[in-house]
Amino acid sequence: MKGIPVSSSNVSRVRSGVVGIVGGGQLARMTAPAAIALGVELRVLALSVDESAAQVIPDVRLGAHDDLQALLAFAEGCDVVTFDHEHVPAAYLEAIERTGVAVRPGPKALVHAQDKALMREALSAAGLPVPQWRVVDDVDQLVGFADGVGWPIILKTSRGGYDGRGVWVLRSPDDASDVMSGSVLSTGAVWLAEELVDFTQEIAAQVARSPHGQAVAYPIVRTVQSDGMCADVVAPCPDLSEERAIEAQEIALRIAELLDVTGMLAVEMFDTPAGLIINELAMRPHNSGHWSIDGAVTSQFENHLRAVLDLPLGAPDLLAPYAVMVNIVGQEGDGLSPLHTALRHVLARDPGLRVHLYGKEIRPRRKLGHVTIVGDDVRVLLERAHHAADYLSGAIDE
Amino acid sequence: MKGIPVSSSNVSRVRSGVVGIVGGGQLARMTAPAAIALGVELRVLALSVDESAAQVIPDVRLGAHDDLQALLAFAEGCDVVTFDHEHVPAAYLEAIERTGVAVRPGPKALVHAQDKALMREALSAAGLPVPQWRVVDDVDQLVGFADGVGWPIILKTSRGGYDGRGVWVLRSPDDASDVMSGSVLSTGAVWLAEELVDFTQEIAAQVARSPHGQAVAYPIVRTVQSDGMCADVVAPCPDLSEERAIEAQEIALRIAELLDVTGMLAVEMFDTPAGLIINELAMRPHNSGHWSIDGAVTSQFENHLRAVLDLPLGAPDLLAPYAVMVNIVGQEGDGLSPLHTALRHVLARDPGLRVHLYGKEIRPRRKLGHVTIVGDDVRVLLERAHHAADYLSGAIDE
Repeated sequence: MKGIPVSSSNVSRVRSGVVGIVGGGQLARMTAPAAIALGVELRVLALSVDESAAQVIPDVRLGAHDDLQALLAFAEGCDVVTFDHEHVPAAYLEAIERTGVAVRPGPKALVHAQDKALMREALSAAGLPVPQWRVVDDVDQLVGFADGVGWPIILKTSRGGYDGRGVWVLRSPDDASDVMSGSVLSTGAVWLAEELVDFTQEIAAQVARSPHGQAVAYPIVRTVQSDGMCADVVAPCPDLSEERAIEAQEIALRIAELLDVTGMLAVEMFDTPAGLIINELAMRPHNSGHWSIDGAVTSQFENHLRAVLDLPLGAPDLLAPYAVMVNIVGQEGDGLSPLHTALRHVLARDPGLRVHLYGKEIRPRRKLGHVTIVGDDVRVLLERAHHAADYLSGAIDE
Repeated sequence: MKGIPVSSSNVSRVRSGVVGIVGGGQLARMTAPAAIALGVELRVLALSVDESAAQVIPDVRLGAHDDLQALLAFAEGCDVVTFDHEHVPAAYLEAIERTGVAVRPGPKALVHAQDKALMREALSAAGLPVPQWRVVDDVDQLVGFADGVGWPIILKTSRGGYDGRGVWVLRSPDDASDVMSGSVLSTGAVWLAEELVDFTQEIAAQVARSPHGQAVAYPIVRTVQSDGMCADVVAPCPDLSEERAIEAQEIALRIAELLDVTGMLAVEMFDTPAGLIINELAMRPHNSGHWSIDGAVTSQFENHLRAVLDLPLGAPDLLAPYAVMVNIVGQEGDGLSPLHTALRHVLARDPGLRVHLYGKEIRPRRKLGHVTIVGDDVRVLLERAHHAADYLSGAIDE
């Protein structure tokens, strides 16, 4: 009953726990509505009061995710600490745990979302389907690997990358020299070389798993990436056999159990003629699950909260045949974005549109928000959602 | 474009307006998720930081709704002021308007939700269907009215009543003497006598209307009252002809236009063999519309925000054949309520259950939260929702 403490100072008030979220981004922001409904008190560790989540959550503590003293002060009084991102050093999470505050997902799980080489190692050892991979120390080792699996190959830094950063496609030994000599690895990172997988489509599986082992699997979604970032998501994936969808859910459930993940786990996979291949993991609510706010009985944000509080999980079922989510991404160019006036126009054009804005300053390639639409006809939903997102971002003006 | 100001100090941040809500109850609390999604900044005027909405909204100003100076200070810097309840004196709202801040709904509309006698007068004058009614100054006038329409009759105070308070069923002149001599009228109130309507069922219509006149109508719901309070709501009303449902929507749309309501309007009606009869009005999100958070494309809270900001309104369509909402009501008895541990049990029993807790201290007859379930079979949904609500309130323990 740890998740549902009775405060001695206020015995008759209904509270379902205090959850601390490290990081003040949009994932923490979108967790707030779920916390409001369940009576869960949120606390957020943010770098400034202007951050996305800090604008909407009353209990904001200022501090950095890599400042041990700030983390310990933040965690004091929380029932559980969880994350908006995966960048907190594992040793610091262990220090929080030693104070008696639960950390979910725990450091032993989270390291597999922080370090892609460790993740590949753990999944390979469990016999799960991953691309051919090798940690390489220099260009010679990389060329040796690439000559074996065939060019081009993918080179990644094991730590510190996101949204396409820290990932390169190499077509020749010269490309390898350019990248490896021109880039500085982040602390603890190594170079990870992987075969370039020839896929039919990219899909994502999301599961929620609680400390006592209950798990639920969301419908498998199709994700389309553009420039290394998630561009749109369709739930459920329109062109996927039921057999392969179940296989994808089982892979995610197996990883959640294998790595002892608590909270939401997203597994990005390549769908290939030869089978599914695991790409990336995220141990938190994920862009591929934003559709669930408006399209599922229980959103990924509520199930993340329920899971880290060890409360029973909610149904992940769709509320409509399809839900489509499209990100609103900051465009190049200076001057004021049209977002302020564009909102009025897109709401007028499409009464079924669900708009989520993150309260961020507009910068190129930044995720500023997303839109979701639910309905029957995927093609029409995609057209409506892309039009609204492009209009909101200023990519189009009619 | 008043609703979407561009702050000169922070020109590139996405903001959709500052909305001040007078009153820190659950309606303001449940508006927060809609504000987070739309990038609307909320400010709440609450009596204490412990109030339901003050727990979850960062910008809390402490003050009373009947303190003019507090109201004026609160309104400064808001784009629009709206309400969690209808108790702000009209003269004070006019004072806010004179400072240039929009008040929505405006005082000329709101007075009809504050004063039942004025409401009856306005609706009668417009030829809308209301019960037979009369303002009575004393027992003699009341007995005269009752002898005409037939005993028993309903006696109400025109102002200050809610959730069954300020409403009596009188069966005899003696009952009338008891009530009228034993009760003190609130400021500006008069006694309102009405015929007791013999109804088949109670229904409610909800519409959102924006300042430039756009309006949307939610599906007509059935409401069941218990002890003067809303007990459960079914959307759409299961036993209502399409013709009568449209008539009910048209009545609500007509009232919204007649009284120049901006924001959400709820019209509670009696469904009788002879036709629809208007019971009460509320000009704000209303208990009869809580189902829309989990059961409609656009919740009543989001459409209230959109309406008061003069943004285009969202689709009110259901996401499932039926949505059922049941209130969690505080029970008699002392000691700690089982709500804290009961939450775990009801979530485990029913993964499709949507729970909304208001963060209130538990007191008898107090609305502490609500549950919603969507699905196909009304009877099953009602059974599941009532069981969960009763278990959460402690009315049952298995």
